[in-house]
Amino acid sequence: MALPSTSLEEQKRRAETKSEAESLLPLFRITRILNHDQNGRRITLLGSIKDQPGLLTFERAAFESDLGAATLLLQSLSDTINLGANDIYRWYMSNTQATPARHSLKINLIWPCTDAHIKKYTAQQLRYVIETPEVYAQHIRPWIERTQRTPKRLDWIYNILDGVTEQEDVVHRSSDFGISLSHDKQKSDSEGFLLLPDLNWDRRTATGLHLLALVERRDLYSLRSLKQKHVPWLKHLRNEIVKAASGVASKLAGELVDEDQIKCYIHYQPTYYHFHVHVVHVMLEANGTTQAVGKAFALENIISQLENMAIGESVGMDNVDLGYFMGEESPLWKSCFGKIKTGEKVDLNDE
Amino acid sequence: MALPSTSLEEQKRRAETKSEAESLLPLFRITRILNHDQNGRRITLLGSIKDQPGLLTFERAAFESDLGAATLLLQSLSDTINLGANDIYRWYMSNTQATPARHSLKINLIWPCTDAHIKKYTAQQLRYVIETPEVYAQHIRPWIERTQRTPKRLDWIYNILDGVTEQEDVVHRSSDFGISLSHDKQKSDSEGFLLLPDLNWDRRTATGLHLLALVERRDLYSLRSLKQKHVPWLKHLRNEIVKAASGVASKLAGELVDEDQIKCYIHYQPTYYHFHVHVVHVMLEANGTTQAVGKAFALENIISQLENMAIGESVGMDNVDLGYFMGEESPLWKSCFGKIKTGEKVDLNDE
Repeated sequence: MALPSTSLEEQKRRAETKSEAESLLPLFRITRILNHDQNGRRITLLGSIKDQPGLLTFERAAFESDLGAATLLLQSLSDTINLGANDIYRWYMSNTQATPARHSLKINLIWPCTDAHIKKYTAQQLRYVIETPEVYAQHIRPWIERTQRTPKRLDWIYNILDGVTEQEDVVHRSSDFGISLSHDKQKSDSEGFLLLPDLNWDRRTATGLHLLALVERRDLYSLRSLKQKHVPWLKHLRNEIVKAASGVASKLAGELVDEDQIKCYIHYQPTYYHFHVHVVHVMLEANGTTQAVGKAFALENIISQLENMAIGESVGMDNVDLGYFMGEESPLWKSCFGKIKTGEKVDLNDE
Repeated sequence: MALPSTSLEEQKRRAETKSEAESLLPLFRITRILNHDQNGRRITLLGSIKDQPGLLTFERAAFESDLGAATLLLQSLSDTINLGANDIYRWYMSNTQATPARHSLKINLIWPCTDAHIKKYTAQQLRYVIETPEVYAQHIRPWIERTQRTPKRLDWIYNILDGVTEQEDVVHRSSDFGISLSHDKQKSDSEGFLLLPDLNWDRRTATGLHLLALVERRDLYSLRSLKQKHVPWLKHLRNEIVKAASGVASKLAGELVDEDQIKCYIHYQPTYYHFHVHVVHVMLEANGTTQAVGKAFALENIISQLENMAIGESVGMDNVDLGYFMGEESPLWKSCFGKIKTGEKVDLNDE
């Protein structure tokens, strides 16, 4: 979440003036289209400026939402053509006159960019897999422990939980945070959690609310770690998260948000393997895949799934088949599910 | 799915010329904004033309996805202003010159419209509820049987299943369709199903694939009707649906679509109470809420949830808490969950 530390050279570059930034765009030479998404309303181009690679993203801008702007939009239509009509329904294509006050395009430029940027912004083919309990136990869980539950991957979270970094971003810390925390944090049954704003939330718009709830206990990797015995803990956690998120939204956005306007979900696979919950306003229209079926699992439904399982000490989410999608570039596809598909040997954990 | 039958007057109106349709737009007088969604890239206005109410929707158009169009777009930028820059990242707003070949707006006009249209297009506040087994048994299920499992609501589906209507839309009928169908269709354990294109699929683009699988048996209302004993039936159904959808996509879109590029999910609450499955390409970026957590339940995960429940004859999805969202205008909110929230008497099934 923190910005990378900057060298002196980078700080100089940061002082680039607005007109210098604007003068870069006409120099962009397109190489190829990397992605065309958001129902076609965003397009990402690879190209170069002064022989250094760059990424340019065009995105259709939002309409202004006041009556005056809507009236101006209607008055400024040009080149309108009718595509078809059926009874009371008619379809058109049109243009609106360009005026500085009503820009219709948002543009992002990343320059000079690296191969990592190019990979990140290139459209990735997705695959839908069914992860059985056996595949989880034999391949996925060892991979998580070997490569994801490492200081490099998790220290930034522990630093937030321990109060070392990013405290200015913590918008809520539960009242039981730090209480009953045993010496061995791995085995803690603490009910504490804290709330951080997701990077996509502007921290002002109530219906855009997107928070992350990081739990204080450190023994849970993902929803696969949840057992039937965690049900009371999860119910308490859910109630407290919803209450706190409603308070945060009302405070930061200055608008009353009820608890039944809050939605909680968990990603599988998550981006990092310290158990956390996504907390959003129920009206939030998600960009991309964050809320999509096959990746987002509603917290309430995971709780009731656990509750209704056959009773047993070891019963939990590691006993069930989980269907979800992943990118073909993911190591889990390349070295596990892709191999299973073609009948090759899984080599996810081979050195 | 069928268009409403048309009177002579309506047929005359349908013959409206393109220039007549185009001449309506400048006459539109805006009354108010009904909705501002799709991350602001769609706006719906209520207004009037010749003293009759109408609805006008503006939507940002997709970018063309070829290199030539992208180059023209880049060359036609005007009024570009830089909003900010941080290291290699820069943000701008801009405009593109209007030319007939690259329209930037899609417009829909519904005129004259009714109150039902206005209600449908007005932004609706959503609420997230947890439906317990008791609320389902006492209120929701009786409401479904009283108001939703009626000939008026279901005959259009039975007509498709019986081959009476819309046969030109049926893109697949399973090989076991009509086999082992008992005399009493209500009690059938038929494994048959058919596939229909969703209205939002253009039937040409593989990654836009969206089909509906209607099962032949008529005894299941929704995912709440699924029992543990249905697991073998559901597994067979899922396998057959995925295989068939892959074939349909490859045939209609002329592009190979693998079975692991297909995603199956179920809505709760559904739009109609005859059990059906949504079948989409895993790359499909959903508009609106069709794939959103809190409404869409992955078929595979419902199957494994049922499989791992405590074993019992009556065990099923009617035994669990279900979390989902609904609009405040829904009768389920107005007469059930909204009442429960305020401590009033539920009157969903009062005459």
